[in-house]
Amino acid sequence: MSEERTEHVVVVGGGVVGLSVAWRAAASGYRVSLVDPAPASGASHVAGGMLAPLAEAWPGEEELLELGSASLGRWPEFAEELSQASGSPSGLRTEGTLVIGVDGADREELDNVAGHLARLGRTVTRLTGRELRKLEPALGPSVRGGLEVPGDLAVDNRKALVALRAAAEAAGVEFVAERAEQVRPGAVELAGSTVSCDVVVISAGAHSGSLHPALAQKIRPVKGEILRLRKRATALPPPTRTVRGPVHGRPCYLVPRDDGGVVLGATQHEVGFDTEVTVAGVRDLLADAETVMPGIAEYTLLEATAGLRPSTADNLPVIGWLEPGVLAATGHHRGGFLLTPITADAVLALLRREQPEALIKATDPSRLGGQQ
Amino acid sequence: MSEERTEHVVVVGGGVVGLSVAWRAAASGYRVSLVDPAPASGASHVAGGMLAPLAEAWPGEEELLELGSASLGRWPEFAEELSQASGSPSGLRTEGTLVIGVDGADREELDNVAGHLARLGRTVTRLTGRELRKLEPALGPSVRGGLEVPGDLAVDNRKALVALRAAAEAAGVEFVAERAEQVRPGAVELAGSTVSCDVVVISAGAHSGSLHPALAQKIRPVKGEILRLRKRATALPPPTRTVRGPVHGRPCYLVPRDDGGVVLGATQHEVGFDTEVTVAGVRDLLADAETVMPGIAEYTLLEATAGLRPSTADNLPVIGWLEPGVLAATGHHRGGFLLTPITADAVLALLRREQPEALIKATDPSRLGGQQ
Repeated sequence: MSEERTEHVVVVGGGVVGLSVAWRAAASGYRVSLVDPAPASGASHVAGGMLAPLAEAWPGEEELLELGSASLGRWPEFAEELSQASGSPSGLRTEGTLVIGVDGADREELDNVAGHLARLGRTVTRLTGRELRKLEPALGPSVRGGLEVPGDLAVDNRKALVALRAAAEAAGVEFVAERAEQVRPGAVELAGSTVSCDVVVISAGAHSGSLHPALAQKIRPVKGEILRLRKRATALPPPTRTVRGPVHGRPCYLVPRDDGGVVLGATQHEVGFDTEVTVAGVRDLLADAETVMPGIAEYTLLEATAGLRPSTADNLPVIGWLEPGVLAATGHHRGGFLLTPITADAVLALLRREQPEALIKATDPSRLGGQQ
Repeated sequence: MSEERTEHVVVVGGGVVGLSVAWRAAASGYRVSLVDPAPASGASHVAGGMLAPLAEAWPGEEELLELGSASLGRWPEFAEELSQASGSPSGLRTEGTLVIGVDGADREELDNVAGHLARLGRTVTRLTGRELRKLEPALGPSVRGGLEVPGDLAVDNRKALVALRAAAEAAGVEFVAERAEQVRPGAVELAGSTVSCDVVVISAGAHSGSLHPALAQKIRPVKGEILRLRKRATALPPPTRTVRGPVHGRPCYLVPRDDGGVVLGATQHEVGFDTEVTVAGVRDLLADAETVMPGIAEYTLLEATAGLRPSTADNLPVIGWLEPGVLAATGHHRGGFLLTPITADAVLALLRREQPEALIKATDPSRLGGQQ
């Protein structure tokens, strides 16, 4: 622990980012309160937990790739510290990722990803369908080719959230189970009261836009439907690696969990603050998953849920001062779990009134324009 | 109310049958206790609530058809009394049923059902696909023909359960929130105690077989997976009638609810006491429902659950004395809601030590053989 500080930090939002910032700040000696009516119940609870900067690399998003790669590199240490601080498993899985394709167009997309990464000096290994099935016998005959990305990992989001909450509590974070309505320097307005403080950190995901004028209209909800399955006694075991890919052009992923569980995702719909699961979404997810892994038909469907990714125009998060006393650490789109270690490091630097590392420059709130 | 009786009746099982028997017995002056760790949470909670003796008529099951038709005839009065006694809606819907078919084999099955009913003197109207779509515009182009069965109704099972519980409470039924382990004359054994009484009524659904030797091995669980959907603002409205039919040979039904809801069922699996919902089950239900009503793709998936139908070798329920002091009113297979009015009437007659109506003879426990 560093020297005692007396600044009071209020974190608004108890998802993976908010919990991590709160834990880290409290462990560094700040007095920390976390405001959330139901911590660990929003998009972070629904998430797949992929830590996959390479598999998700896209031309034009090089800054996001750099940010994601740097944050991924910190995950093993972050996970270790989290386990120690909480006495709970972090949920990190290090088996790596396969990106697969089914039809010709899918494989063309994989070629594009591989080519893009090669131009950036990152190599991934191409595999035939036969080679893929040798690594993961659960894959079906429709899987015709893919890429091995051993460095792209995954974390059991719910285990991580349990651990983060325990770590935050152990570090002395005070949980305020109320909904924040507005944030201004030195104060967070709740329904019937105000929490005064020195610094506010807004980590409220898709709801961040309503809390501060600088974020208004800058963060939009992108709905994702996700299914949670579990192997039945008589069914084939799931893959050991995350398997993802375009399946007839649709993004699809199967993320294995330690208990025979599989998280299946994810649709993307821009439909506002709507977390209903649709028949079409479930039908498509199941069809694509069966194409990738036919044996999944015999799995139990435990849960169908939807979450709201907090998305920005350039898919980069928003990390930095909105005005004196008000920090943003939000807008993580698909990458909340991936980007949490680097986000927490950046927020800690900002709380110390230091310049965060150079990579963080790309996430500066000022790039969004509008009222600052 | 009839004259005061002092006999203490213990009903084991708080599904639709047990709640109805308890309500009716208490309203007739018996002292009634209902033993169930979680009333209204088992197969009755999962059910579709179809009251459809004609649509489910099958050669060789003429006694079941007679029983079902007689019970259906009592539903309007039963519903009326239930509403009055509970102050809650009974959930009865009187819009009738369409039985539809998709492919040639489906339509052959419909011909068989129509022919069978005609031989029994019951007529149903045949409709073309065009005529069906005129009645229910939500039906898709794959629906090629069907039968109109206006007398087959449906009840919102959850509304009915809420009302039954309220009616039972209002009539003075005592709820004992524990699991019955064994039944013998004059006593129901719980985990750590015994409830003494004059008569026990076993209405414990698929679990009835473990409670009394006369039912052992006679009632087996038949799992049914079911989905609950609800219309989204932009989606087409559901049909007003229950729509059911063989869809490419698979049984499938869509039962509309008053609030834009649709209950979608149901698979049939003989897999023991297993209430897990499988990927294959959900996939098939959604595919068949979309064939029947394409617009359902835009509905919200609210719930995927499975229940255990309590089934006997001849698909008839078991209603009668197992030994002095122990009555059975169980084994209702797919027909718990349909057969509840006639079952409750029969149990009330038996409690009065009268002979129940002649139709009930077919449900006598002695037909099952084994220890009586």
